Amino acid sequence: MLTVFGSTALDTIRTPSKVLKDVLGGAATFAGIAASFFVDTGLIAVVGSDFPKKYHNILSKRLDLQGLVVKNGKTFRYDGRYDNTLSTRKTLKTELNVLADFTPVVPESYRKSKYVYLANNDPDQNVAMIREFDRVKFSMCDTIEYWISTKRSSVIKMIRGVNAVVINDEEAKLLTKEYNLIRCARKIMGWGTDYVIIKKGEHGSLLFFEDVIFPSPAFSLETILDPTGAGDSFAGAMIGYLASLNNTALSAIKKAVVYGNVVGSFAVEKYGLDGLLALTKSKIEKRIKHYEKMIQL
Amino acid sequence: MLTVFGSTALDTIRTPSKVLKDVLGGAATFAGIAASFFVDTGLIAVVGSDFPKKYHNILSKRLDLQGLVVKNGKTFRYDGRYDNTLSTRKTLKTELNVLADFTPVVPESYRKSKYVYLANNDPDQNVAMIREFDRVKFSMCDTIEYWISTKRSSVIKMIRGVNAVVINDEEAKLLTKEYNLIRCARKIMGWGTDYVIIKKGEHGSLLFFEDVIFPSPAFSLETILDPTGAGDSFAGAMIGYLASLNNTALSAIKKAVVYGNVVGSFAVEKYGLDGLLALTKSKIEKRIKHYEKMIQL
Repeated sequence: MLTVFGSTALDTIRTPSKVLKDVLGGAATFAGIAASFFVDTGLIAVVGSDFPKKYHNILSKRLDLQGLVVKNGKTFRYDGRYDNTLSTRKTLKTELNVLADFTPVVPESYRKSKYVYLANNDPDQNVAMIREFDRVKFSMCDTIEYWISTKRSSVIKMIRGVNAVVINDEEAKLLTKEYNLIRCARKIMGWGTDYVIIKKGEHGSLLFFEDVIFPSPAFSLETILDPTGAGDSFAGAMIGYLASLNNTALSAIKKAVVYGNVVGSFAVEKYGLDGLLALTKSKIEKRIKHYEKMIQL
Repeated sequence: MLTVFGSTALDTIRTPSKVLKDVLGGAATFAGIAASFFVDTGLIAVVGSDFPKKYHNILSKRLDLQGLVVKNGKTFRYDGRYDNTLSTRKTLKTELNVLADFTPVVPESYRKSKYVYLANNDPDQNVAMIREFDRVKFSMCDTIEYWISTKRSSVIKMIRGVNAVVINDEEAKLLTKEYNLIRCARKIMGWGTDYVIIKKGEHGSLLFFEDVIFPSPAFSLETILDPTGAGDSFAGAMIGYLASLNNTALSAIKKAVVYGNVVGSFAVEKYGLDGLLALTKSKIEKRIKHYEKMIQL
């Protein structure tokens, strides 16, 4: 079993072609649903009493929700606008609401999870949470600019406590104060994690382990509608695939990165969560075959 | 035999760690020397009477110089400065000098070249030159922002007349007025060329042919000293490798792109031309093996 801890949000996403208002989003939503194609996945998150029933139904169909807390108050809201090229997003508003003073608890039934994904949460919360599991085999975390800027030493402490860090290229540079991605990864591994996966958006990803570097190009897409959640979907699919194999050898992790790339490519083809919601395991496997053919010399 | 037509220059390159003054450079210098590891390569270029003997010796050891014209006047000079991250270069000065009114001529002995590389020259000159060869099997051109901005219709006409276009990502977007690289490539292929290779610097390259997309990650390097000439080295190694096989099947072109990536990676590891000058065929083959292992799942 896999546990995913992160945010569940109501997102307002302004793309050049469409504006989505208060749609289901959040790092844990994307990561959890992406993982659910591979393995039973439990969610630890909080929503407010305004959280729509239809969104609750979407989550409950795919995820174990024993760890989903419904609190009095408003759900976490995010509002952002993409530029015309869809390459940068400007945050217009973040309302933490019920997320502000949420103390996550690991339900008894999740404690046996061997795979744990800690999304871009407060690093101190991530550190505390990982200790609540009985026998973690593989833990992975993400982080974002906000925590790097405000709690860098906690981020480094968090990194020491996980097996893998998945992070985007700009944030890896910010965190390590290096320009070169190999140097970034070496520094992060030096803080005590075994694997570093640097996400490069349309350029794919780089996996680092000891002296191994595994570059994985993105699955090339002609039409991208909404990049929201691509990185979270990548991470969720990656750890979900590993959990389904119950194997954390390097060869499995390389393959998991490819699954991450492919599931991420589905996420950006449609608006909001629609790409993942329209997905099936067989569509994933078909694109994996396509991907393997694409990169073949 | 391969013919390379392009600029030979005296470059002033300002990197964060070192300033090089009036060193041997130019698109045809990098492309020609990169190609010379694979096949006999003839150069068509012009230099001034101030062109140092030592640079002439470097070229003559590696290239056929029947097409190198020495004119009264000063050699083409370029002066540019990289930012701290080595990711952008600002042009400080361009002195065309003898390049300004150079009319290139194809030496009799080059006319039988089956492989022709037209570097980022005036597109009208490239169009005229390709007609002077008797039986071209594979021609490839590059272009740059300057020609796209000033002679876009000539660039498109040039593209119609070659088998392949190699171009960097930003210039592909500028030329096609598209953001998505697949759309860029489709548009360029629509103008009448068979293959499009989009260079993405540290992110590698994308090869396009009909419905095939072949992404090739860059060979990851921890130390990059000077990116000058990387793209030209990529193109030269690519077409040099193809010429050495005398094969232009898609499978050969994919392999050629990998050679381009690998030779480009040597170019950026040292300052100016030093990376290529220190290179041997066996070092290339060793890194090709390393590369193939690196990308293997």
